[in-house]
Amino acid sequence: MAHDNVVEAIASFQTHPDRYRHWRLSFEGEVARLSMDVQEEQGLRPDYTLKLNSYDLGVDLELADALQRIRFEHPEVRAVVITSLKDRIFCAGANIFMLGSSSHPFKVNFCKFTNETRLGIEDASAHSGLKFIAALNGTASGGGYELALACDEILLIDDGNSAVSLPEVPLLGVLPGTGGLTRVVDKRKVRRDRADFFSTVAEGIKGKRAVEWRLVDQVVAKSRFTQAVTDRAKALAAKSDRPAGERGIALPPLGEEVGPAGVKYRYVTLALNTSPRVVDLTVKGPAEGPPADGAGLVAAGADAWALRAFRELDDALLRLRINHLDIGTVVLRTEGDPAKVLAWDDFLEKHASHWLVREVRHHQKRVLKRLDLTAKTLFAFVEPGACFAGVLAELALAADRSYMLADPQRPTALQLGVANAGALPMSNGLSRLETRMLAEPQKVDEILAHAGPFDAEEALAAGLVTFTPDELDWDDEIRVALEERASYSPDALTGMEANLRFAGPETLETKIFGRLTAWQNWIFQRPNAVGERGALTLYGQAGQRAQFDVRRT
Amino acid sequence: MAHDNVVEAIASFQTHPDRYRHWRLSFEGEVARLSMDVQEEQGLRPDYTLKLNSYDLGVDLELADALQRIRFEHPEVRAVVITSLKDRIFCAGANIFMLGSSSHPFKVNFCKFTNETRLGIEDASAHSGLKFIAALNGTASGGGYELALACDEILLIDDGNSAVSLPEVPLLGVLPGTGGLTRVVDKRKVRRDRADFFSTVAEGIKGKRAVEWRLVDQVVAKSRFTQAVTDRAKALAAKSDRPAGERGIALPPLGEEVGPAGVKYRYVTLALNTSPRVVDLTVKGPAEGPPADGAGLVAAGADAWALRAFRELDDALLRLRINHLDIGTVVLRTEGDPAKVLAWDDFLEKHASHWLVREVRHHQKRVLKRLDLTAKTLFAFVEPGACFAGVLAELALAADRSYMLADPQRPTALQLGVANAGALPMSNGLSRLETRMLAEPQKVDEILAHAGPFDAEEALAAGLVTFTPDELDWDDEIRVALEERASYSPDALTGMEANLRFAGPETLETKIFGRLTAWQNWIFQRPNAVGERGALTLYGQAGQRAQFDVRRT
Repeated sequence: MAHDNVVEAIASFQTHPDRYRHWRLSFEGEVARLSMDVQEEQGLRPDYTLKLNSYDLGVDLELADALQRIRFEHPEVRAVVITSLKDRIFCAGANIFMLGSSSHPFKVNFCKFTNETRLGIEDASAHSGLKFIAALNGTASGGGYELALACDEILLIDDGNSAVSLPEVPLLGVLPGTGGLTRVVDKRKVRRDRADFFSTVAEGIKGKRAVEWRLVDQVVAKSRFTQAVTDRAKALAAKSDRPAGERGIALPPLGEEVGPAGVKYRYVTLALNTSPRVVDLTVKGPAEGPPADGAGLVAAGADAWALRAFRELDDALLRLRINHLDIGTVVLRTEGDPAKVLAWDDFLEKHASHWLVREVRHHQKRVLKRLDLTAKTLFAFVEPGACFAGVLAELALAADRSYMLADPQRPTALQLGVANAGALPMSNGLSRLETRMLAEPQKVDEILAHAGPFDAEEALAAGLVTFTPDELDWDDEIRVALEERASYSPDALTGMEANLRFAGPETLETKIFGRLTAWQNWIFQRPNAVGERGALTLYGQAGQRAQFDVRRT
Repeated sequence: MAHDNVVEAIASFQTHPDRYRHWRLSFEGEVARLSMDVQEEQGLRPDYTLKLNSYDLGVDLELADALQRIRFEHPEVRAVVITSLKDRIFCAGANIFMLGSSSHPFKVNFCKFTNETRLGIEDASAHSGLKFIAALNGTASGGGYELALACDEILLIDDGNSAVSLPEVPLLGVLPGTGGLTRVVDKRKVRRDRADFFSTVAEGIKGKRAVEWRLVDQVVAKSRFTQAVTDRAKALAAKSDRPAGERGIALPPLGEEVGPAGVKYRYVTLALNTSPRVVDLTVKGPAEGPPADGAGLVAAGADAWALRAFRELDDALLRLRINHLDIGTVVLRTEGDPAKVLAWDDFLEKHASHWLVREVRHHQKRVLKRLDLTAKTLFAFVEPGACFAGVLAELALAADRSYMLADPQRPTALQLGVANAGALPMSNGLSRLETRMLAEPQKVDEILAHAGPFDAEEALAAGLVTFTPDELDWDDEIRVALEERASYSPDALTGMEANLRFAGPETLETKIFGRLTAWQNWIFQRPNAVGERGALTLYGQAGQRAQFDVRRT
């Protein structure tokens, strides 16, 4: 059974290659090598051992950190080889004993983060000139194969033994939920009946059949494996548009202050329990305008507002998800000078082809997607002094609802710009403005053409905010909204928000977070998986066999 | 708590307007009127009363029957008004006490059927020249509003009181899962923040705001309501392409024989437990060829093979879902003369514009979709004497896996034709062949151009079947496949199949069955809904308030 009392909070979500326990990150010119070497006894909790390169959230936080560093600190890298330092094993996937002993919310949040990290690999491939090779020097099973599926190419060693497999259904009674089922049929386009067979054969598939069935791109004899991986890395690197002769920027720790009342970063603040089960999340705009050009941005490095504020927001969101389960509503607030935010946006747009500008923008995009995918209610409050402009206006557009004060004495503003015109798409491929205006797509251009800020009346008329209470109603209206929200079933709200936020087209990403994740979460509740005689609970217990309620649902 | 011991099996899924308890079906020229008048004490089970036009599966089986009869028996109908005979109430949605006292599998299957019925309304609108008006003469809440959302137009009476609402989240801790959330943002394109507010305000929205927010199409004063509905019905009817001067065909009872070993229809047979937790579902091809023309088809009526066989299959699938929960695997088999099936398909293609031909084909399409959406493993066995040709070949293409005997002494065949070329799309909008060939779309035309039947070797090479065991291996291979399948977690299989079957594009339909349904099923397992202190459990108990585990997941 899930252990609801286990401590699952994480002290810090930040790490650095010097402190990695489970990965080795090395560089050879334009090729980076990310080698997995999980330390069995160094899991986040003491109640499981990470055998066979299986992973927990700690392992995955290092992977996510490494990917960020390759993007920002190593612009010379054009191809990344993901492999293992263990003999005959690439990766056995998420650690089953960790899953079995985790609470339901932790399992769900863990899977979400690992999904986001793997989508980050595909984002880097699609937008950053980085190509990824999964060099499977041994068996890749479950989440191990799912990690490979996120790469551009999969090379499997042909040693008579090593296979790829998704043994979750036959062995554990759960799904390959880290994108596995979706990527098999939708990305690699494995025929559905073959995918069915593959997903039920615990020992997996190897050799020629793995290639014929599109499960891997090549199987390579052991003696030629290293060379083949190098050759493919070089071939993929040759097609990259990453810059020549540029130096990266370092990503230092964020230096946040954590206390019982919340968390303070330089630009982001989390103020806990300003109302029951509510956090106020405030993002401050920049104190200074943008640099003159890309070189100036490189010189500013990780201190540049457009990067630092979003690294902080990213960290804050992870904290909220994992460490503050009782928080149901995030009130999104902003402060600062809208003109400066818009100037930063304009700078990023103008220099979009500069390598670091590109990284900063795609980072903003990914952080905003993380916000969209956070299973907490998002309310934006637009009050005097707020700075919902450009990229920060995306916070208001990401909100489930937005409240904007309409008080002639204390004016409020919301202002759009280039950042709202498509550079920061949601998982569904549309901008937040397009998603919002699904019924009247022609209004998108009208709204973007609006000169200057929208006041409350204009914002309401344009459909940019939900409600515009006046000064007499404001306090009561937001108090009631927050209290009512806190009174509803947290589960029903999660399900509702997951359905309402992603209107319009579906993509690989929305399929993973909508369809696949929802089914996995269902299964993660079912006695057949997590009950006393469930398959996940009993895994690895010699002589114990799962007992199933056979009713098909 | 869910009552797992309650008897939820249904004696018959067929009904007739003469026996309706809850609906009145009347006709006035080209307008049919479906009036809801639910009898409180005539629910399927005695442990709840159907107050306020709330419904259970029995009510919805009548609705589904009425829709079929309008399509087949009443070709003169061009518009359908769905309304209520109760004063000031249109429909209060699915009965909460029924939901609260149903087992989890029953809840899930009930919701699936109601979803299919509402999608059937949209199918009739898109393809059959039937337009639907929801004439809300009173409040439509929850599933009541969801029924309205499936119609082409929603007219709401303006009596100062009547509203539309989705109170599931605030009152019950579950989702508006019968397409509600999806249709609000994806069909009616209600802005997502308004949808958020609407879905949390239990009393709903009425009057001008309901129109402004796109929740209804018109609000009409009480005095003008009847006339306004009639006017809209006539206006919509005027655009219909339904035939003039044609007479419908009667849909008599199927006359199945039900026994402990299974069910026998004329063309369809269910043989239970041929192997543990397995049913053999056999569809027989036609004994005779098709008629000469549409008039001949009308003369054959409900005895026509292309209609009768699929009505039987539809009924058999409902039986399997609701009455045979322990059955995990459906073995799809066929018998008969492939040439005759192909002749029927050719006939339907040639006369596609005839009204009854059109109905027969769309019916086949809907039944095959019901098969795709059945939460049981589908294996197709292609053996000597089988008749997997044309429309019956769709059964093999719908299967999670297909096994075709390769024995030179006892040849087997699989043959495609016009029915496989797009007339019978899946919920994802693609044909089953297109879905299967997602990796090689160019192969679709090649395969369709193949002259004559595919033998086992050819079918394997073309990618039409999964495995082709020879005569020595056949028995063992299928025995092992069936036994292994029966040994896996039924829940994991359901989740896996729901993800692998619908590769490719997503539609409103797949969003409802994938994303929305999966989240609803998750919530239907959560203690916050169905636990002793859950919101669904406690609904209607005076003085009792749900207690929530507040952890956001």
